[in-house]
Amino acid sequence: MKDFQSRALKIENNELSILDQTLLPFEEKWIPCLTVNDLVQCIRQLKVRGAPLIGLAASAFVELQRQKQVASAELERLSAQLMETRPTAVNLRNNLQSILEGKSWEALAEEDILSCQKMASAGSALIQDGDQILTHCNTGSLATLGKGTALGCLCQAHEDGKKIHVWVDETRPLLQGGRLTAWELEKLQISHSIVADSMAATLMKNGKVSRIFVGADRICRNGDFANKIGTYSLAVLAKHHSVEFNVVAPRTTLDSNMANGQDIEIEQRPPEEIHGFVHPTQGVQWTQGPVYNPSFDVTPHELVSHWIIEDQVLSQFQIELFF
Amino acid sequence: MKDFQSRALKIENNELSILDQTLLPFEEKWIPCLTVNDLVQCIRQLKVRGAPLIGLAASAFVELQRQKQVASAELERLSAQLMETRPTAVNLRNNLQSILEGKSWEALAEEDILSCQKMASAGSALIQDGDQILTHCNTGSLATLGKGTALGCLCQAHEDGKKIHVWVDETRPLLQGGRLTAWELEKLQISHSIVADSMAATLMKNGKVSRIFVGADRICRNGDFANKIGTYSLAVLAKHHSVEFNVVAPRTTLDSNMANGQDIEIEQRPPEEIHGFVHPTQGVQWTQGPVYNPSFDVTPHELVSHWIIEDQVLSQFQIELFF
Repeated sequence: MKDFQSRALKIENNELSILDQTLLPFEEKWIPCLTVNDLVQCIRQLKVRGAPLIGLAASAFVELQRQKQVASAELERLSAQLMETRPTAVNLRNNLQSILEGKSWEALAEEDILSCQKMASAGSALIQDGDQILTHCNTGSLATLGKGTALGCLCQAHEDGKKIHVWVDETRPLLQGGRLTAWELEKLQISHSIVADSMAATLMKNGKVSRIFVGADRICRNGDFANKIGTYSLAVLAKHHSVEFNVVAPRTTLDSNMANGQDIEIEQRPPEEIHGFVHPTQGVQWTQGPVYNPSFDVTPHELVSHWIIEDQVLSQFQIELFF
Repeated sequence: MKDFQSRALKIENNELSILDQTLLPFEEKWIPCLTVNDLVQCIRQLKVRGAPLIGLAASAFVELQRQKQVASAELERLSAQLMETRPTAVNLRNNLQSILEGKSWEALAEEDILSCQKMASAGSALIQDGDQILTHCNTGSLATLGKGTALGCLCQAHEDGKKIHVWVDETRPLLQGGRLTAWELEKLQISHSIVADSMAATLMKNGKVSRIFVGADRICRNGDFANKIGTYSLAVLAKHHSVEFNVVAPRTTLDSNMANGQDIEIEQRPPEEIHGFVHPTQGVQWTQGPVYNPSFDVTPHELVSHWIIEDQVLSQFQIELFF
């Protein structure tokens, strides 16, 4: 397999490594994933995360095994083990199926990078000079092989010369917004401010949010979609304040087997994430006791302004026809 | 002055001490406030917090100075210094004015404890057996001298034998819900779960929230009120999901000088609170960069189901007449 490097995934001498995203923004450390268990742990602990990137990391691993002449029954076993790591995002399943059906990883990677560029261009077209845009979690070059999904649109608008300000939801409990999105925006010198998740409403009330861009982990046939916990809250707040609410995802996020969002399995995460800040060396516990910790929520289609699926900008009436 | 002790404030041998709430739930340490600067630091750093308790701590300090024959001009200077510590809650100003007008601190303390009991009884009457109740920040015995405001109602319902479950918003950035409210509920053995603030919406969507109880830092003549950041977000979400939304406060929280919420000064807090977890010894920084950190938001009256002001349960039509 040819060497490859993106912001958070690397293939060198036929070995897969991932950038440990739990250490960002203060440390950049690459972790080699030599065994399936290495990669399973990295996915479970969110060292590698982002629906598209998880799918591409897992499928790169299986492709590397295939090239080492591992038998196809064993490739299927490895894929099944990887599919079980996180239940909500569908890209993982979709990418692994493509690999098992014989597609090359290089083709998947190329498609992801190209689809990021398509989303960025289509999404940027919705953004006006002077916009203040709120985003949640991380959906940039740390979540894909390209420039990202939702965050990619914002970066493209900046590249296109539009002056924007980005409100970054910190995204408790794992702080992918505060740690990762802020890190990406800083590198790109895009004006931004980090806020606690509970501050989004008051920003909207005060007219500080022109539109919202979020990613997705799974989009159903009627347009309902799962995404990082807190997304549904933003969608309701956007409706109340008449703020445009846009979802951005590649085709690998579509689940044509699911009619609507009510059957999406929502991953429950460990209580430690709510009890404090989880980190390999700097972690801290600030409370104890019973916890409820769903990692995702489901936003019903009626709260969405546009679905940006690669180069398509779809409205309420178009999303069902798109599948 | 007679010795006095509540959960978080103590007067012993004519000296004021406060329980350091930044160390809870893992450490209970009392801090003597011998000088005005001691107390100013404690208030600014939220070692003592909760709109009613801040007012009572500051007024206890001034009363102790008065009893030491400090001249009245100096008492006024001390009061002015204390009033400047935090701008949003009005109880601080109201309590200090009462002391300067000659009211005894004992009378203020007795009124606070009695008013907590009145709120608890009036609020508990709204709660049904089997209710799941969501609350934000901390409004219990750590925020008052008595059993609390919003949280006091929940505790009273439990004492009255109603089976309830409490959803505790962790309340970023200072985590008064996750650290303090959970600590109080654990002591009282009331069933509860801590959630990240962004999870409240999905709980409401899934029918897991029967009603919401929150406190207030300032209530204007038309019923608009300021409270901990995140309160307004809950009010909008409650409206969307047709969930009852109740505000509980003593009379010292009323500001008859303010017609509506648009002129309430919102305190901006330091970026360190968003950059990580602020703690005297266990603090951690997990990000850096620009931050927006308002400590409060304003909820317009039309989103409120009931204002529980001491023994009165007021509706939209009653709140203006109440002033």
